[in-house]
Amino acid sequence: METNLFPNLSIVLVETSHPGNVGAAARAMKNMGVTEMTLVKPKDFPSEKAKARAVSAADVLENARVLDSVEEAIADCHLVIGTSARDRRIPWLMLDPKGCGAKVVAEQAVGHKVAILFGREDRGLSNEELQQCHFHVNIPTGEAYSSLNLSMAVQVICYELLQAKQGPVTDQRWDMDYASAGDMEHLYKHLEETMIQVGFHDPETPRQLLSRVRRLFNRIRPDQMEINILRGFLTAVNRLSK
Amino acid sequence: METNLFPNLSIVLVETSHPGNVGAAARAMKNMGVTEMTLVKPKDFPSEKAKARAVSAADVLENARVLDSVEEAIADCHLVIGTSARDRRIPWLMLDPKGCGAKVVAEQAVGHKVAILFGREDRGLSNEELQQCHFHVNIPTGEAYSSLNLSMAVQVICYELLQAKQGPVTDQRWDMDYASAGDMEHLYKHLEETMIQVGFHDPETPRQLLSRVRRLFNRIRPDQMEINILRGFLTAVNRLSK
Repeated sequence: METNLFPNLSIVLVETSHPGNVGAAARAMKNMGVTEMTLVKPKDFPSEKAKARAVSAADVLENARVLDSVEEAIADCHLVIGTSARDRRIPWLMLDPKGCGAKVVAEQAVGHKVAILFGREDRGLSNEELQQCHFHVNIPTGEAYSSLNLSMAVQVICYELLQAKQGPVTDQRWDMDYASAGDMEHLYKHLEETMIQVGFHDPETPRQLLSRVRRLFNRIRPDQMEINILRGFLTAVNRLSK
Repeated sequence: METNLFPNLSIVLVETSHPGNVGAAARAMKNMGVTEMTLVKPKDFPSEKAKARAVSAADVLENARVLDSVEEAIADCHLVIGTSARDRRIPWLMLDPKGCGAKVVAEQAVGHKVAILFGREDRGLSNEELQQCHFHVNIPTGEAYSSLNLSMAVQVICYELLQAKQGPVTDQRWDMDYASAGDMEHLYKHLEETMIQVGFHDPETPRQLLSRVRRLFNRIRPDQMEINILRGFLTAVNRLSK
């Protein structure tokens, strides 16, 4: 079980004020398989509060690099991405979180070191810091309230990193085999006979009843056990009305 | 400026223990334009702690419905989705967060009411509650630590809701017009002449220098102001070396 799915990717938190956010960010990272944290001049660290909020990600905090400048944090990185509100004075190349995930995964695949910078809780990254980045990434929000909590921003970015790495979830796991078309025809036949038997269906004035029954069960796409349950029920009804 | 981008969508938090999570969830929701919160038997509500964590989303807390049962919370809903860890005993129709966003937006477009259920911090939704859902949604995680904080789960799901509603970000806003191919040719000519003038480039043994210069500046894709800056600099160099 690999804890760090993103070696050579550092999440850099710049001048955090609230240790709770650092802890929550550590948990958010580890949940998504990201474990390398760098703290630039954190206000209160190490901290019990951070540890409490990290829950099972205390190791991320313990292994965090604590540095004095952004320059140091990114010195050996080939790709630097900074989180930013929109509408900075000088527009920069922008990524959305999904694009950020794809870019990071592609760069890491060829061995590049990557840093993603997150700014201060109250005012983000400075213009100087943003200009050290190749790309800016912005998390789209509703207009009414656009300021995400720092650790929430880390969660969204790391979520899209893992999405980019793992690809979409394709396994629609199911514990039974689906019924075959033949099984379904037996069911429809059995249903029709039973509905006639109990006086619910008159084959002389069918309306759309059987079509609707087909549409219903085809939409449900029953598995074989479910077919057995349905047919067992019908057989019980058959016995009763004999 | 519309605060509620998802009328008829309720985020239902079932038996929360920590009011801080409720506040953080309110903020996460409002950041993504989701404002209708339902609390089923919250442990400590209303709460100052929740209000503090909600920051500018206190209105979401104030307008939250507080109910006694999940049944009540979903009674008038056409689509009910429950957040769930993977590997429940009986598999259910699963969505990933992106699929959940698409499904909700599609259903809302035809006027359906939707509820998304989030379970208790320590043990999620009960099997009984999960069986009241049409779909389950699971947030993919790394294997080493799969348990997201409740409010983080709300953040990811609401992020994908807004992504589904707004579509991908397509505006690569830039404040200047890009340079035309003609502008670029003038620049290359100017650069070449200047490099010859200062003795950096020997047209008799060109190597790949000019090709590399072209590749560099075409990759940068300069805007017109940047071209003016570059050519102004070259002109200054030209004057100096006369």
